[in-house]
Amino acid sequence: MIQRFLEDYVVGQTYGTGRLRVDEERVKRFATEFDPQPFHLDGHAARSTIFGSLAASGWHTAAMTMRLLVDGDLKPAGGIIGMGFEDFRWPKPVYPGDELHVQSEILEVRPSKSRPNQGLIKVRNTTLNQNGEPVQIATGTLLVPRRPS
Amino acid sequence: MIQRFLEDYVVGQTYGTGRLRVDEERVKRFATEFDPQPFHLDGHAARSTIFGSLAASGWHTAAMTMRLLVDGDLKPAGGIIGMGFEDFRWPKPVYPGDELHVQSEILEVRPSKSRPNQGLIKVRNTTLNQNGEPVQIATGTLLVPRRPS
Repeated sequence: MIQRFLEDYVVGQTYGTGRLRVDEERVKRFATEFDPQPFHLDGHAARSTIFGSLAASGWHTAAMTMRLLVDGDLKPAGGIIGMGFEDFRWPKPVYPGDELHVQSEILEVRPSKSRPNQGLIKVRNTTLNQNGEPVQIATGTLLVPRRPS
Repeated sequence: MIQRFLEDYVVGQTYGTGRLRVDEERVKRFATEFDPQPFHLDGHAARSTIFGSLAASGWHTAAMTMRLLVDGDLKPAGGIIGMGFEDFRWPKPVYPGDELHVQSEILEVRPSKSRPNQGLIKVRNTTLNQNGEPVQIATGTLLVPRRPS
């Protein structure tokens, strides 16, 4: 199993993921628990909103993106541990039937000042639909272990 | 039912939410679907990680925060429709048994340039645990309708 350390990441590298189809029942179930607003629960109610039809909660898109990343090629040793994001956007809605995948680009690689065995990588994760349109763009920082000497 | 329009929001206002207790089975269920990493699935496996014990996925914290906001006092007319975040951080982990609530502060209020009936508010949503420690800080922009004339 691949496990990448800080030293394996280089600015400009890109990593991909598999694909995940957005399921209508799961969209409604996620919304029922976490984001019970009409445009995420009911296709009819969504018609008069900016979404136009039933749309996934942005947090569902974020969660599906995480699932794709966990199963994807980025593979930091110790897991994907995010510290936060300096930019996080949903440029377009996600609809049931969409098929999502994620492209990651390494923007920065640096050792941690406070933790000698750790480093930080800045990554831009772009979630795309089946038409190649970005539905989420998240530029954030991951904690990555340094290679044991 | 309260429905706030752009004209009702003023820089410096604060809004609160109820409280939500973090449930261990829900932490594991969320992780199983969206973030299946050992420290979110298994307390024993989490011991040797920076989390120290079973911790909620950050995306679960984000989703619980959304639920608190939807049920909270912010109440924009037309719903809570986020465009994105300019800063989004998880300063501390969230553990089963924690009790979360959210404090929102209005940072900016402005009409939309492209949509005459809409405006944008910048809000900092701080999710706090039962000890008053921030576990998520998210500064983002919401789409809010202008009051019909």
